[in-house]
Amino acid sequence: MMIKYPNGLIYHIKKNNNKKNKKIKKNRVFNAANRGMRFENEINKTNDFYLKKNIAIITKRPTPINVVKVKYHNNSAIITQAYFEKQSTTDYNGVYRGYYLDFEAKSTKNKNSFPLKNISINQINHLKKVVQNKGIAFFLIEFYTINKVFFLDAKYVIKCFQNKKKSSISLNEIKKNGYQIERKLTPIYDYLNCKYFKNKI
Amino acid sequence: MMIKYPNGLIYHIKKNNNKKNKKIKKNRVFNAANRGMRFENEINKTNDFYLKKNIAIITKRPTPINVVKVKYHNNSAIITQAYFEKQSTTDYNGVYRGYYLDFEAKSTKNKNSFPLKNISINQINHLKKVVQNKGIAFFLIEFYTINKVFFLDAKYVIKCFQNKKKSSISLNEIKKNGYQIERKLTPIYDYLNCKYFKNKI
Repeated sequence: MMIKYPNGLIYHIKKNNNKKNKKIKKNRVFNAANRGMRFENEINKTNDFYLKKNIAIITKRPTPINVVKVKYHNNSAIITQAYFEKQSTTDYNGVYRGYYLDFEAKSTKNKNSFPLKNISINQINHLKKVVQNKGIAFFLIEFYTINKVFFLDAKYVIKCFQNKKKSSISLNEIKKNGYQIERKLTPIYDYLNCKYFKNKI
Repeated sequence: MMIKYPNGLIYHIKKNNNKKNKKIKKNRVFNAANRGMRFENEINKTNDFYLKKNIAIITKRPTPINVVKVKYHNNSAIITQAYFEKQSTTDYNGVYRGYYLDFEAKSTKNKNSFPLKNISINQINHLKKVVQNKGIAFFLIEFYTINKVFFLDAKYVIKCFQNKKKSSISLNEIKKNGYQIERKLTPIYDYLNCKYFKNKI
C-alpha cells in the first residue's frame, strides 16, 4: 500500500485514545495509511473469496517486525521492544492454476496520474526477478478519488520506473496498458477474472 | 521448523545475558528451537544462492506478530507490547520456472522416524489447497542425529497425516517415497536439483 506503517495500529489508537485520534486525523500520513489499509482490506476479502471457492491461494506477507527485547512470563514470550521494518518484496503472492502470482496493491488520491515514488526500488527489483523466473507480476492500482481500480502488468510499470524522465504514469496510459477492475459485491475486486489472464492462462 | 518460537530471539539473549543463556541451554524446548533455526538458516542460505543465480525466488514468510501496544517517539513507532503468533500456512513459498512452490522445513532428532505431531493441521490444510490449485507442495525433513535431509512430496505426507493409525513416517518410508538431498558447500541443500523436479518440470 502507499504508506504501510504503522499497519493496523491506527485502529488500536482510535479505540483507546480519543486525544491521539484527533491528532492523527490532522496528519496526512495517517490518512494515506488509512486509505491504503482500506484498499488492502478489500484485496484481502477478495483473496478470502478465492481461497474459499478454491480459485486461487493468494496470501499477504506479514509486515516484518524487528524484535529487540523479549520478556518471558509463565513460559510465554512477550515482545517489549520492536520496530516495523519495510517489506523488501511485495505484499502479495500465491498460486493460480499452478502459476506463480506476485503483486503489490497501491492506492493514490491523485485523479489523473499514479506517482512512481509510491513504488520502492526494492519492489521493482523483486518484480523484475519474478518476471525473469516466469512468474506473473502485476500491480493493482486504486484511484481513490475517482473510485477506479486497475490491473497493470509489472513489466509496464518497471519500464516506466526505469525511464528517468518519468515521475508518474498518467491515468490515460494506465487505461491503455492496463485493465479496469470493476467493483462488485463478492468478490470486491475480481482481478483474476480480468482479460490479462484470459489471454495468458 | 519444529518449534519456531521465539524465532531469532535466542541469539539476542545469548549476546546480552549470560545467566539467561545458561537457563535456556537446560531447556529442551529451546534446544529444539535452535536445531530448527539452524536448519532454517541453511535453507535460507540455499534460497539466497537460488536468488543470486536467478534459479528461483523462494521467500520465507515472516513470523506473524500480534501487535498490542505502540508508542510514538519522534514520529517513529515503537512496539512496546506484542506476541508471536503461529504461522497459519507454511514457512516458504516462491517461484521456480513459473511454477508455484510451497513447502515447510522440519527438523527431528529422531533416528528412525519423523513424528507427524510436528506438523499442524493448518499446514496440512494449506498444503492440500496448494495441491488442489496445482502448486508444487513438499516438505524438507532433516534427521538431525543421522545428518540426512529428505525431500518429500506433500501429497504423501497428507496421506500419512490422514491415516489415523499413523503417528509417524518411518525413515524407510521416507527413503522409499522421497529423495535424499545431499549436503554440499554451495548451495547447502540443492533441493531444486532433486529428481522430483526432473520428472515434473
